[in-house]
Amino acid sequence: MPQPVGILRHQVTGDVYAEVQTFYAQQMRRVDALDIEGFADTFTEDGEVVHAGGQRQSGRAEMVAGMRAALPRYRDIAVRHWFGHLLIETDPADADTLRVSYYTLVTQTDREGNVSFQPTFTVDDVLVRVDGRLLTRSRVIHRDTPAEPPAAS
Amino acid sequence: MPQPVGILRHQVTGDVYAEVQTFYAQQMRRVDALDIEGFADTFTEDGEVVHAGGQRQSGRAEMVAGMRAALPRYRDIAVRHWFGHLLIETDPADADTLRVSYYTLVTQTDREGNVSFQPTFTVDDVLVRVDGRLLTRSRVIHRDTPAEPPAAS
Amino acid sequence: MPQPVGILRHQVTGDVYAEVQTFYAQQMRRVDALDIEGFADTFTEDGEVVHAGGQRQSGRAEMVAGMRAALPRYRDIAVRHWFGHLLIETDPADADTLRVSYYTLVTQTDREGNVSFQPTFTVDDVLVRVDGRLLTRSRVIHRDTPAEPPAAS
Repeated sequence: MPQPVGILRHQVTGDVYAEVQTFYAQQMRRVDALDIEGFADTFTEDGEVVHAGGQRQSGRAEMVAGMRAALPRYRDIAVRHWFGHLLIETDPADADTLRVSYYTLVTQTDREGNVSFQPTFTVDDVLVRVDGRLLTRSRVIHRDTPAEPPAAS
Repeated sequence: MPQPVGILRHQVTGDVYAEVQTFYAQQMRRVDALDIEGFADTFTEDGEVVHAGGQRQSGRAEMVAGMRAALPRYRDIAVRHWFGHLLIETDPADADTLRVSYYTLVTQTDREGNVSFQPTFTVDDVLVRVDGRLLTRSRVIHRDTPAEPPAAS
Repeated sequence: MPQPVGILRHQVTGDVYAEVQTFYAQQMRRVDALDIEGFADTFTEDGEVVHAGGQRQSGRAEMVAGMRAALPRYRDIAVRHWFGHLLIETDPADADTLRVSYYTLVTQTDREGNVSFQPTFTVDDVLVRVDGRLLTRSRVIHRDTPAEPPAAS
């Protein structure tokens, strides 16, 4: 049986929708520019990322080290992260905590202009508003895998 | 002569924009998870889909049957629907009826992570708000074809 | 050193976010339909476009001429422009002037349904609201190139 997706309990306002989209637009410009320190600064000091392969980075320092180690992969390619289908859920007990889920598609363009694609991912984030500014507190990245077809009824 | 696209008469508010985007984020998660029953539930009971090839599905039962028949196509691939350039127009006579047009790009990722693409489509939907919750009443899917160049002037 | 991306000083409201997205949805439908005159009409009379290769088009008449000359490239392909990660900044001195930056991905689908991709671009626009309707006053298109990795620290 496929896992049914629940109706969101809390409709997001247009202002929060724009705020969250703008946050990701800024965060992705930093990662796509290989601005490692600037990217880490969009996380809380104790922010965590769990990558699709299972490795976990805890805190900005570990994130920065992990990204530095991965830099050779991005030599000679322009990377761009594309997002789709954001689902934003506010925490009824805490208006400054948001759970966000989204699709990502990553393009890699080489110097000749050829575009290639990484597999698609779905990401689950927890964002927190600190001094009026969103930061990512946790991110779990899921590699998209074929869905199990439903049993015949 | 190309068909000029009219200026929308009704500017959509941020709240409605976020509501519609959230609706599609939920609906597409269901279809991409092969949650056929859950997907059909995002349509009105008498909902209709007209596919790019011309075949028409009327009502949830027909949709479910059509999707079950198509399941073998999705064995071993992770499908994701990406949307672009939503145009949302509210009905001046009925605030609970929305006409929405959007671009779609469909990625298919196999188990090795290779991404392939279906041709692009443009979709025209009519959404209705029932008990405060959006549902699709009709969907017409157009395969994108080369535009006729304008006559030299 | 990578160029750090600044925090936006002005948070955009949901209504403006929806207005700008809707403007681009209309503008891109026109360009993708090869509706050259209609596309030019989404610019101010003195609107300017600076293409990634450096060529500059000033005013609607030059834009129309440039697009007519490029038409043979679009014979037999359906072009679609996809946008990502809009950053919208309002001018504190003039609420009717908006600076917008966004990612673009361009798909080209041939008559057989094969999809190919142009290299990705980042675009910087200045939009102005004239009689309540957005128009593009200037557009600078940047071809995405590999980021310079940060110096080891």
